[in-house]
Parts: sequence; structure tokens; C-alpha cells
Amino acid sequence: MQDLVAIYKRVQPFIHKTPIIHSRLLDEATSANVYLKCESFQKTGSFKIRGATNAILSLSESQRSKGVVTHSSGNFAQALSLAAKNSGVKAYIVMPSSAPEIKRKAVLGYDGIVTICEPTLVAREQTSAKIQQKTGATFLHPSNDLDVIKGQGTACYELLQEEQNFDYIIAPVGGGGLIAGTCLFANAFSSNTIVIGAEPFAVDDAYRSLQSRKIESNETTNTIADGLKTQLGNHNFPIILKSVQQIIRVTEEEITAAMRFVWERMKVTIEPSSAVAVAAVFKEKNLFQNKKVGIIISGGNVDVTKLPF
Amino acid sequence: MQDLVAIYKRVQPFIHKTPIIHSRLLDEATSANVYLKCESFQKTGSFKIRGATNAILSLSESQRSKGVVTHSSGNFAQALSLAAKNSGVKAYIVMPSSAPEIKRKAVLGYDGIVTICEPTLVAREQTSAKIQQKTGATFLHPSNDLDVIKGQGTACYELLQEEQNFDYIIAPVGGGGLIAGTCLFANAFSSNTIVIGAEPFAVDDAYRSLQSRKIESNETTNTIADGLKTQLGNHNFPIILKSVQQIIRVTEEEITAAMRFVWERMKVTIEPSSAVAVAAVFKEKNLFQNKKVGIIISGGNVDVTKLPF
Repeated sequence: MQDLVAIYKRVQPFIHKTPIIHSRLLDEATSANVYLKCESFQKTGSFKIRGATNAILSLSESQRSKGVVTHSSGNFAQALSLAAKNSGVKAYIVMPSSAPEIKRKAVLGYDGIVTICEPTLVAREQTSAKIQQKTGATFLHPSNDLDVIKGQGTACYELLQEEQNFDYIIAPVGGGGLIAGTCLFANAFSSNTIVIGAEPFAVDDAYRSLQSRKIESNETTNTIADGLKTQLGNHNFPIILKSVQQIIRVTEEEITAAMRFVWERMKVTIEPSSAVAVAAVFKEKNLFQNKKVGIIISGGNVDVTKLPF
Repeated sequence: MQDLVAIYKRVQPFIHKTPIIHSRLLDEATSANVYLKCESFQKTGSFKIRGATNAILSLSESQRSKGVVTHSSGNFAQALSLAAKNSGVKAYIVMPSSAPEIKRKAVLGYDGIVTICEPTLVAREQTSAKIQQKTGATFLHPSNDLDVIKGQGTACYELLQEEQNFDYIIAPVGGGGLIAGTCLFANAFSSNTIVIGAEPFAVDDAYRSLQSRKIESNETTNTIADGLKTQLGNHNFPIILKSVQQIIRVTEEEITAAMRFVWERMKVTIEPSSAVAVAAVFKEKNLFQNKKVGIIISGGNVDVTKLPF
């Protein structure tokens, strides 16, 4: 517990304490008592700045002087760039050529050093490895790194600081960093709270991993929840296996409907990956009826010209 | 001043104290120091609940027992229904047959008694008059009523309670209730603050009214800002004429761009009428450079299936 509080205090100066939104409309629609921890309002538009900041602050002086490297086309690219900039560290970001121009510009805006590669995992890993060799930069994985995982959990810590006695906390599951971090803090500071994951049916690798007790992957990744396509890793899977009670799967239609509800009725722009967790509460009405439920809204980065409704 | 504080205290139990959002991104993009008073998070999704509540609380016992009536297809219909329900008063709402099903349902959800009429101003007024005759209900105008106007101004009061020394406060101008109320409170509690209106070029009746010093109307109303199509009234125009320094006009493209900025970058769902006021700050960079600017974000009621981007 002391370790986790120390991590939060270290990360705190670099992040927003995001608002927790409670809505009568959502409560009525779900028959539950729901609190949204809105990381959509976080710096860079997602929770990823928390983990990126903690990972950079965990490096030695000598490591920091050589910079950090990651491959990401999504939220972690921006987050690592800003976290590195905040600490005067160089951030080398490998992005696939398929990444939208707007995301590349955002990374450049935070002084990230962008290298473009072919849009395959092999190319991304090879390009990162080359940069590591050349610069001595430390590779930071977006979700499968214990310092990243602990940093992501600080969103849950802020939620528990403001609201107590949750029956459930739900987080979306992509690479597993957010939910693993959520487990660590929930277990430490609210031991009666059950952590549940939410995942699209289309990429239900984590659901299958909990069943088979080994890390499964997705053969196709045909979901609107673009942040949840990746698979779990060896650092976060043991935590998830131990502490996540179940993973609720939702359809693409349920994701879109939940996203629309939050946009139209609650006036908050959330990304599809976050809507997955909201959809889980709408779906499992019996489980959540009259329960106090916290949801980690992971982010709000959406291209509004490409909406599903 | 005491009168205005008393109004706020009376309305306060029935409304949300909405958040004020300050964003480094918006400041950088506008070169100003901008604070958004987000009535998008208000009950019923707009500031209108403030004026509706104050108007109902200003009625006599005997008036209340007979109910209230208005004609509106927009935010005031929902607001009056909820405000009336909160005080145990009947609300008769005249809606044009062209009003979207979702708005009619929202009114019914607040126990409003809906009468559908032809979608013309004459039909709306005649239908309201008939209901008045039959029931003895008091007609409440959405914007041209002094109690409504004073109630709307309480959004500005909350803004000034939390943040001081505004150089400018900007509000969108439709029927004139919001900006007139804003003037009353700004003059009383922040006399050095200049109030500015914002309006689409397509419905610039208030701009022309300030020039001609009489109430002008619009021949066409071809704007995305559906809340700003109406004209000023004899109760709010004298206040606006006395206290609004200028009205900034913006194009439809500027409205859409401002709306997209707030949705994508700030993650708040605002309606086009509110984006008009944000667009004004983007447009008049010289005027607002390094100034402290408050914007009343009037609401967030948007059909997300009909977006301009």
C-alpha cells in the first residue's frame, strides 16, 4: 500500500485529477449506481499518461539521458511523448505508416521523435530494436511493463479516494495494463470491491485467456474499439488471472449504443474502447442491479468525422 | 444585487452547479485565457432549467395550481416540464408536429402534457391561447419574460463566484434571455467585465437590432445553430441595448470548426448554438488576445446522427 501511494504522489504533479461523473440518467437506464472516472479529460486524452509518467520516473539517471522508445499508433504514443518531455527525456516513437496524420502531428507536438515503419508488428519491433541499439534508449511497452501498470492504476486510486464502498469496478481490457493496475489499487485500498473486465466479442482474447489460464490471441480484430485489439502480456496476465473475477463481452452494436448514450445524454466525448465498459453495465442488468459500480473511462480520443452513428 | 442573490438562492436547490472548464489547448488555439461555464452538464442539458425554475417559483399559489403553458420545440420545453414537475405544477407544452420524436419523449418523461400543432408560429400561439383559456394556466415565454431572464443569469453568477476579473463574458444570442440575464448579473457583480454576444451571420437579427436600436427579425433561418433562430423581445431588448457592447457574427464553417474543437480536443459535447460563442473567440483573436474570457456554454443537446462533420 505504501508503495502504491508513493507511486501516486510521484505521478500526481504531471497529471490531471480527472472528474468523476455521476448521472441520474445513467443510473435509471442501468438500474445501478454508476460512477464514471473520466480519463477522457486526462492530459493527451487518455489514462496512458499515468503509466508513461511512472515508467519514466522509474528510470535511472543514466537511462533517462539516453531516452525511451516505444511503438504505438495510439494513445500511448502521445502519452509517452508528453511524459518524456515533462522530464526532459527524449522519446523515440515508432509509428506504422497507416497511423492517421492527426496522431503523428500530436506526437510531434509533444516533441516526440517519430520514425515511420511498415504497418506490421514485425516491422514495428525491428524498427524499435534498431533505435534501441543505435541510441541506447530504454524500450517501454504500452501495457506489459510493471511500472506502466502501476501508473495506470492511479486512476482507480483517485476514484477510491473520492468514492467508497464500490461493489464493482469495471475497466476495458486491451493490452491489460489498465485493468491490471486497477486490480493492484482496488485490492490494496478497497478489498471488498470486485474488479470486472469488459471486452468486445470481436477481440475476446482476455475472456478466453481467463478460461484457458494462458495468454490467448485474436485471429481477427474487427472492432470499433481500436484500443482493445492487443493481447495480454506476461507481466499483467498473472495479476489479471488472480484478481479479475470475470470478463463481460459486448457486441459492436452494444458498444455503439453505450457510446451514443454517454455522448448524447451525459455530454461527454468518450472513445469506443471506454464505451465497452459502459456497455457491460447496460448488458448485465441482473448482476449490477442496485450495486455501486465504478467505471474507468479510459479516454476520449475519437475522430468525429468517423463515427458509428 | 440582493434581489439577484435571492433569486440564485431560490433556484439553487433545483439546478446543478455546472463545472467551469479551463483548457490549455483552447488557450493556445485562441491566444486568450478562456473559461467555459458548461451548461451542457445542466439538468435537461441546457441553461433553460434556470429560467424556467425561477419563473415557476415567482408565480402565486393560485397561479401554480392552474399550471403553466409554453410553446417550444427545443430546450425550454424540457426545462419547463422538469421545473414544473419539481414544484408539483402542471406544464402544458405546445410542440410543432415537426419536432423530433426524441424531444417529445423527453418532455413526456418529465410529465409535460404535450399538445401537437401545425409547425407555424400562428398555430403555436393559437394552440397555447386555447390551453390558457381552457385551463387558466399562465403562459411563460422561453426568453422574453423577466423572471426567466433573471433565472438564466444565474449561470453567469456561478461563473463569477468561482472566477474573477473577466475582461469579457460571451453568450450566444437567440431569443435574448440568456444574454440579458448574463448582463444583469455581470453588471451587478463584475462591473468591469464587458458582455459580448455571438450570433451566426445567417440569423444576425440581434446584430442588426443593436445597430438600428429596434427589434429586427430574420427573413430566413438557415443555420445549424437551431437555438438561435428566434428574435429578441421587448423585455430583454432594453437590457441588451444598454449592456451588450457588441455582437460578433460567425459563419456556419466557423461554428462547425469550434464545435469540433470542443468535442475532439476538450471531450465535451456542446450544441451548435454554444459553439457560436466559442467561434467568436477564435475569430476575433486581436480583441481577445491575452484577455480573460468567460463563455456561457448554453447546452449540449445534439442529435449525434445529424452532425455537420
